[in-house]
Amino acid sequence: MARIIVDVMPKPEILDPQGKAVHGALPRLGFDGVTDVRQGKRFELQVEDADDHTLAEVERIAGTLLSNPVIEDFTVRVEDAS
Amino acid sequence: MARIIVDVMPKPEILDPQGKAVHGALPRLGFDGVTDVRQGKRFELQVEDADDHTLAEVERIAGTLLSNPVIEDFTVRVEDAS
Repeated sequence: MARIIVDVMPKPEILDPQGKAVHGALPRLGFDGVTDVRQGKRFELQVEDADDHTLAEVERIAGTLLSNPVIEDFTVRVEDAS
Repeated sequence: MARIIVDVMPKPEILDPQGKAVHGALPRLGFDGVTDVRQGKRFELQVEDADDHTLAEVERIAGTLLSNPVIEDFTVRVEDAS
């Protein structure tokens, strides 16, 4: 068994209202020192074996089902066995 | 400038309807080989300097504003400069 992580984040040029809302709330809650916040999604996919075939399949899943490639970027990586 | 990543995932004992929905959709779309999916959130916080004070502050932000500690776990890490 292996775990593959897919991170999906809004593209840098895309407005991110969720991140902006978090960023705007921080000073009101007494936190300063954070200059920007972006919010995205994280998926953990459990697979039998993280071989090349499975990774290629997960890349296709990430680009079609897990992200909207018009407004989001994604990264796929195998989690370190730790 | 440094970037701190906060990953927020549903606790293992908590049902994850979003992850289950993704998992259920995979076979219909022709993907097999994925045995489980969990969906969570990923936050990227831009800070001036990732020193101990800032990291402690981000830990407090993560535990109060970014996650619901009743149903979610979070991890905080400084992103590798790459």
